[in-house]
Amino acid sequence: MLTVQEALSLVLENTVEQVRQSKKKLLDAKNFSLAEKITTDRDYPPFHRATMDGYALRLEELEKTKKFHLIGEIFAGDVWTPPANSKPNSTVKIMTGAAVPDYFDVIIKREDISENNNTVTIHSEKFHQWMNIAKQGEDAKQGTKVGEHGALVDDSFLTVAASIGYGDIYVYTPPSISLISTGNEILPVDTNPLRHQIRDSNSVMIRGMLRKYKARIQNLWTIPDNPELLLEKIPRCFKTDICIITGGVSAGDADFIPHTLKSLGVEEIFHKVKIRPGKPIWFGKKGETLFFGLPGNPVSARVTYKVFVEPCIRKFLHLAQESSYYLPLLKARKKKHDMEEYFRVKVINEGNHSYLQEIPSNGSGDFISSLHSDGIAIHPAAKSELPQNEQTQFLFW
Amino acid sequence: MLTVQEALSLVLENTVEQVRQSKKKLLDAKNFSLAEKITTDRDYPPFHRATMDGYALRLEELEKTKKFHLIGEIFAGDVWTPPANSKPNSTVKIMTGAAVPDYFDVIIKREDISENNNTVTIHSEKFHQWMNIAKQGEDAKQGTKVGEHGALVDDSFLTVAASIGYGDIYVYTPPSISLISTGNEILPVDTNPLRHQIRDSNSVMIRGMLRKYKARIQNLWTIPDNPELLLEKIPRCFKTDICIITGGVSAGDADFIPHTLKSLGVEEIFHKVKIRPGKPIWFGKKGETLFFGLPGNPVSARVTYKVFVEPCIRKFLHLAQESSYYLPLLKARKKKHDMEEYFRVKVINEGNHSYLQEIPSNGSGDFISSLHSDGIAIHPAAKSELPQNEQTQFLFW
Repeated sequence: MLTVQEALSLVLENTVEQVRQSKKKLLDAKNFSLAEKITTDRDYPPFHRATMDGYALRLEELEKTKKFHLIGEIFAGDVWTPPANSKPNSTVKIMTGAAVPDYFDVIIKREDISENNNTVTIHSEKFHQWMNIAKQGEDAKQGTKVGEHGALVDDSFLTVAASIGYGDIYVYTPPSISLISTGNEILPVDTNPLRHQIRDSNSVMIRGMLRKYKARIQNLWTIPDNPELLLEKIPRCFKTDICIITGGVSAGDADFIPHTLKSLGVEEIFHKVKIRPGKPIWFGKKGETLFFGLPGNPVSARVTYKVFVEPCIRKFLHLAQESSYYLPLLKARKKKHDMEEYFRVKVINEGNHSYLQEIPSNGSGDFISSLHSDGIAIHPAAKSELPQNEQTQFLFW
Repeated sequence: MLTVQEALSLVLENTVEQVRQSKKKLLDAKNFSLAEKITTDRDYPPFHRATMDGYALRLEELEKTKKFHLIGEIFAGDVWTPPANSKPNSTVKIMTGAAVPDYFDVIIKREDISENNNTVTIHSEKFHQWMNIAKQGEDAKQGTKVGEHGALVDDSFLTVAASIGYGDIYVYTPPSISLISTGNEILPVDTNPLRHQIRDSNSVMIRGMLRKYKARIQNLWTIPDNPELLLEKIPRCFKTDICIITGGVSAGDADFIPHTLKSLGVEEIFHKVKIRPGKPIWFGKKGETLFFGLPGNPVSARVTYKVFVEPCIRKFLHLAQESSYYLPLLKARKKKHDMEEYFRVKVINEGNHSYLQEIPSNGSGDFISSLHSDGIAIHPAAKSELPQNEQTQFLFW
């Protein structure tokens, strides 16, 4: 049986990166993947900018005198030109955000001067060149790359793109998705199940998770464990980028998915991975369409979505893989199997330390306990015990 | 001058929680704040559920014999009733997800039996009551609270609400927002600024951040530093829940916001906080409208939004405050002032430890360096140095 890493590598190897793009209004592009290279249109700051309200002076004059002639006042947004009769030892009053005229290279803040009859006296001995001035180009020179293919459009990027003047940007088109819940016991959410039936929460859960990537649901079906119906419906998914099927992938007599997919010409790339929960996961491909058969237990479906489907979507969109983090485990935990186990955790603080607290649960069918979780942590395959305080890798949901 | 905690307390004391609600389709309610109490409609699991493909048996019989009569087969979704002539020592073949008939209380997995001519022989000696069965109600009894006012509608909640049969839910109506960028140097994003001018990136940044809470922008203006224009426009914000103004709050000659707001009858609650960046922040109230005057420097505006405005919006929406976390600091840092400093950080992994890495920057005007940040960490007011490896509190953006 494949390890999680081996299986994930196969998923990523078989994922072809999107080439289609679309143009979006800057704000509507939030959380999409950037499909163009963006460079600064000019230096940032674009001019020597006053970072303080004060008086602009020239350092070499300030080193010789403490008295200056006040010859003007500059507000942010002003274009200021010195009067024709300007003399040495001149100063201008300047406001935060204003462009500092080229002659000046120090700003002394208001509290350190006195002003009388257009004469400004400096009372501070502490000054240095470019004090209280953000120099033109110090943050980025013109032509600096600030966004490239596959960059996430987040609030930091929005700020930069707006500054540069991008009203619209190109982003990669999210994948089109077919989402199929299978099982005779599964009813639509708006129905009243009998005692032995349950509502289709998996498709709602996965649609919720797909929203993060703006994935477009093209086909959305609940299908009983009936090979004929599956054979009829599944070919309609061949034109979507990713087909996610929940349920029917184990080895039971009603687990028709692997056989049905194969008989439709979908190439099996793997079936079963050393992961818990989620061992029966099936993965295959036909043409450019990827097929994920996720186990029907809601926690298994969610974990395998997170571990295999989400990385596939991120690669499809040219996005870097999501960061995992490490925190110490609040309480030791043991396992008896040799699979990689993903357990639900909450990040809690005790004093000035953060810890991972395992969420108690009744197993992979217990989706109600997930309400209290922030994400999933990894118990490596080879370790039978994670001791208390063990630095443990986790992902936010 | 107020500390950050004192100022934040004043913000929260003056924030009135929303009473208006609206009904949303379940998936469209994602990331809203739940405005109703939700309890389970029945036990979860709703029946004793097989968690494994296998054979259902009765423990007290299994303790006496290893041979059973096969009397049926149960798939998920089946309603099964025992044949009229059932005898003791009977078993049924059962599939994962199916309802276990009341008579049985153990499931032995397929690998541990042999079947011949309707006689099933058990080869395992390891069994216990309820083995491979998720008992009815073990995850939650009927009537268990699974959502209450102010719960975030996340993917975990969507799964539970779908299971219970909620097609629509009530959520709190997000705040209506007036967003005003001030400054003579500020131009709209789609214009070409002269050298001494800059584009209005602050309003794009804040609109990006407000999307997290689905806040509705009702007024969106860029206004020069002109008291008459401000006096004319600001009264139109009195019908929105929150008015966010950037720029013009410091003590410069063009900083008209505090005076203008006061002259319009907006009560000043505080002006200036011991925070860096962001010291000049202004906060006030008129009727039910809250006014935030944020400094115009983009990093100051973003930090003060995150530290003061976002908690206000969360309280307005009945949401619990966002979690901060602690991680060790990769490199020591010093500060000379006595303010609480918020510095931008990236979470990085070295070996199996996560650390906070400070993002080098040229100060509060340098928004380009934010591109590499995951959030902001706190350097407490009273500490001049944070040593290497110091457990440091931070917030994701």
